[in-house]
Amino acid sequence: MLGLMQDQPLLISSVLEHALTAHPRSEIASRTVEGPLHHCTYADIGRRAKQLANALTALEVQPGERIGTLAWNGYRHMELYFGVSGMGAVLHTINPRLFPEQIEFIANHAEDQYLFFELSFAALVEQLAPRMKTVKAFIALTDRNRMPDIEVPNLLCYEDLIDGQSSDFDWPVLDERAASSMCYTSGTTGNPKGVLFSHRSSILHSLGLCTSEGFGLSSADSALLVVPMFHVNAWGMPYAAAMCGARLVLPGPALDGESLYELMRTEQVTLALGVPTVWMMLQQHVETRGLDPAVDLCLNRVVVGGAAAPRTLVETFETRFDARVLHAWGMTEMSPLGTVCNPLPRHRDASLAERLDLQAKQGRALFGVSMKIVDEEGAELSRDGKASGHLLVKGPWIANQYFRGEGGSILDEAGWFDTGDIATIDADGYMQITDRAKDVIKSGGEWISSIDLENAAVGHPAVAEAAVIGIPHAKWQERPLLIVVIKPGKKASKEELLEYLETRVAKWWLPDDVAYVEALPHTATGKLQKMKLREQFRDYRLAQE
Amino acid sequence: MLGLMQDQPLLISSVLEHALTAHPRSEIASRTVEGPLHHCTYADIGRRAKQLANALTALEVQPGERIGTLAWNGYRHMELYFGVSGMGAVLHTINPRLFPEQIEFIANHAEDQYLFFELSFAALVEQLAPRMKTVKAFIALTDRNRMPDIEVPNLLCYEDLIDGQSSDFDWPVLDERAASSMCYTSGTTGNPKGVLFSHRSSILHSLGLCTSEGFGLSSADSALLVVPMFHVNAWGMPYAAAMCGARLVLPGPALDGESLYELMRTEQVTLALGVPTVWMMLQQHVETRGLDPAVDLCLNRVVVGGAAAPRTLVETFETRFDARVLHAWGMTEMSPLGTVCNPLPRHRDASLAERLDLQAKQGRALFGVSMKIVDEEGAELSRDGKASGHLLVKGPWIANQYFRGEGGSILDEAGWFDTGDIATIDADGYMQITDRAKDVIKSGGEWISSIDLENAAVGHPAVAEAAVIGIPHAKWQERPLLIVVIKPGKKASKEELLEYLETRVAKWWLPDDVAYVEALPHTATGKLQKMKLREQFRDYRLAQE
Repeated sequence: MLGLMQDQPLLISSVLEHALTAHPRSEIASRTVEGPLHHCTYADIGRRAKQLANALTALEVQPGERIGTLAWNGYRHMELYFGVSGMGAVLHTINPRLFPEQIEFIANHAEDQYLFFELSFAALVEQLAPRMKTVKAFIALTDRNRMPDIEVPNLLCYEDLIDGQSSDFDWPVLDERAASSMCYTSGTTGNPKGVLFSHRSSILHSLGLCTSEGFGLSSADSALLVVPMFHVNAWGMPYAAAMCGARLVLPGPALDGESLYELMRTEQVTLALGVPTVWMMLQQHVETRGLDPAVDLCLNRVVVGGAAAPRTLVETFETRFDARVLHAWGMTEMSPLGTVCNPLPRHRDASLAERLDLQAKQGRALFGVSMKIVDEEGAELSRDGKASGHLLVKGPWIANQYFRGEGGSILDEAGWFDTGDIATIDADGYMQITDRAKDVIKSGGEWISSIDLENAAVGHPAVAEAAVIGIPHAKWQERPLLIVVIKPGKKASKEELLEYLETRVAKWWLPDDVAYVEALPHTATGKLQKMKLREQFRDYRLAQE
Repeated sequence: MLGLMQDQPLLISSVLEHALTAHPRSEIASRTVEGPLHHCTYADIGRRAKQLANALTALEVQPGERIGTLAWNGYRHMELYFGVSGMGAVLHTINPRLFPEQIEFIANHAEDQYLFFELSFAALVEQLAPRMKTVKAFIALTDRNRMPDIEVPNLLCYEDLIDGQSSDFDWPVLDERAASSMCYTSGTTGNPKGVLFSHRSSILHSLGLCTSEGFGLSSADSALLVVPMFHVNAWGMPYAAAMCGARLVLPGPALDGESLYELMRTEQVTLALGVPTVWMMLQQHVETRGLDPAVDLCLNRVVVGGAAAPRTLVETFETRFDARVLHAWGMTEMSPLGTVCNPLPRHRDASLAERLDLQAKQGRALFGVSMKIVDEEGAELSRDGKASGHLLVKGPWIANQYFRGEGGSILDEAGWFDTGDIATIDADGYMQITDRAKDVIKSGGEWISSIDLENAAVGHPAVAEAAVIGIPHAKWQERPLLIVVIKPGKKASKEELLEYLETRVAKWWLPDDVAYVEALPHTATGKLQKMKLREQFRDYRLAQE
């Protein structure tokens, strides 16, 4: 027997319509490519998103067709988020930091019909346009006076495109499972694979962000999105902010420490979201200039995701910024949010050290994400905070396959998705990633966590970056090798580093050797490429004890 | 083109499973009929809900069958919430305060298969059992030693029923639109009508409660549910609390001021939810005893719903309890939450008087509830805070018909549900109820709000309760008559009352006369019965000017 409730689909257009009636005057502040800071409201975004939807309709864009973007975080990108998905097409945000060949592959694989691009990427578009086979026109996200002087067939101007269009648009009532946006994962191997989000998954994920156990996002927040809108929908924040009326602060292309600090100060940012690297630059800026962020800013919480938050980073935010770190974890395949490290009442009186121990964990699952750890045979492991195993997830905002079925089936028989991570889960549900499955070091039948070792090593004042890989060992099967990049002007001997680690990790985890390098290899999105590192150290031999 | 996300239904069982992994140790404190305070965890609730599900399966309860309850707020009722809905049956919570004939009608109309009842209602069950045609057994919510001595066929004991059952149960993967629970509305006319909630509507509604723009419910809360679990699922709180890990405090049958105050103090309640009447009793207790709630309690916010929150009530909570009032509005047909009066950043520096003005409004719609006001012809009215009209709503947790189609179609052609309320909506989306459509007074072509007049009148120190109805008038069509109940030992002349109102409402709204009564007629759920009042004053004549 079915319930007798209204059959109203969960649609991205309904988020915008909600914003237009429940908090139309909440603001979006954007730093633009052109330079000046731009302020508008959700009412403005709504009006222009509807003009855009009319323009796309005039261009005969069909439901389900992909519309590409190469753009920074800014109000026009917001308009695309709502206008494109709202009218039934699929917003395909492309990471402009990828190699040109990857961008070409992605746009062709997705069969993008139109490509909206920021002026920063004019030269890139000029270079790639001839090879983007399906793109019917390229639209520069600017006004007529600033159109770039490039040779591109069917070059259009965004402001001209929407100018004169009606700001009335009847959003279609779509199937909530319809595709709304897509994002390619930049795996460390093979071609990027497309994840196709639905209206339903985006709405449920956004609700999760607005709950207190998520980011507790609310209309009281002024939220700085350092995480790019081309990266998993900026962790879903544009939708979530429109849902609850949070003020958005969009930094455009300027992501250096000084620019971010200034923006946080002038736009009274309460919540900021980004990857550790960005926050390291911000802290570096504060350090160098001798600033007092606890006084200058009204920063309340910082979401750190994309990679594990180093303990020193968390500590600096807690002590110098007077801001609480929300360690978060997810993947493109998960929309992306899986867990947030929110404290429980029992942690209320925790000391700083205890809080930092807790913050080192990736957190508890949001409602909507089921999580378990299993051994090599798939048997579920105990939630005791000690047993570590393959982390599997399940839920309505988790992918069930990649676009066009690339990579084949990605769920097991019971519908679980293997995250590729190795993790522990404790009795309170806090999950902690200990490694990537492919990076784990197997020593004497036990696992050594390369991530724990790396996090401990970067705590040393002379270490800029660290990586740990497993090196074959006759007796132990594998033993860890610590590879470090030393900060300019600093020094740290092998003995000193190992001594430093001795009090921080289990004795049998201590690396057998330390290698010094100028730089570590990264992907275009900043992920450490351990595969390249393993390749590089293929012939490395450890002294066999 | 559909998105490629997992097809995971939104089910009540998944809320429980989430609680069991994300916050198994969060507590539920219950005051029991038997007397003592009972403490357990979500892990305990989960274990026993699964035992119950096994017991229901053994009783051959089929998917969609209704299971009735006559119970207070307590842990066993929680177990029924999750066990019954989780295993696919429909939890039918019956209001024990209804007249026995209404309870009989409701149980028969719903075709309840089993009836779980609290010891308080043993005599009632004994009286009604022979007339409850579909009920196969009556289960007393107690243990063997406390079984009531009543003549009821197929009388079972709850603890015996679940004892020995396995605490493993594989929840069925239901259609998320399947019915999960039902509640009858006690309309002021005709037979009660059943509202049939679905798993989907319950989950979406709960997510709304957990968002910062809802109640901001979180694991940091200790939430006192004064609103009964037999009244629209206690405003959805049992699900929402399990979703986010909030501690629940369930007061059982003791709802007097002293009991509630004591519970708030000992259980460190941060959030309390109930109707104005209950809060008036609590404030009376504080007044009489000369207590200092700001010191004794850690109450942070109070949700007032079910009827408009009088200004004096809001003020007392703000000033004497140091608690923020969340004025909320909804209906059984809306699961029930429609709006919450949360402030916007612009209200941050508001004075107490300004805050009270804002708190008088019912608030902004949650994401998921669309709202508009229309005139008599159905044309949408302006959101200017002035125009008032019929309040229509739409959304995934709003009913599309009553059980068995009673009352016929309840949506208009575009799918809007008429709430029967008259309201204004302002530019920031704040809605304020000005009247019930059937209670509005039409004077000279304009509307006079009986609710505004009543709220103003109860502000007078001598007035215990007030009602305003329209009386036919030759010239003006209708004019307001103020009907008051005076507090024991107090006095207020007609002239004094009208003078008091003069500075508080528009001059042309001033009642033409004042009538004094001993008591006002109410429904079993405490709603003012204006129809009876109009009947009572049918022959009343105003002096015609």
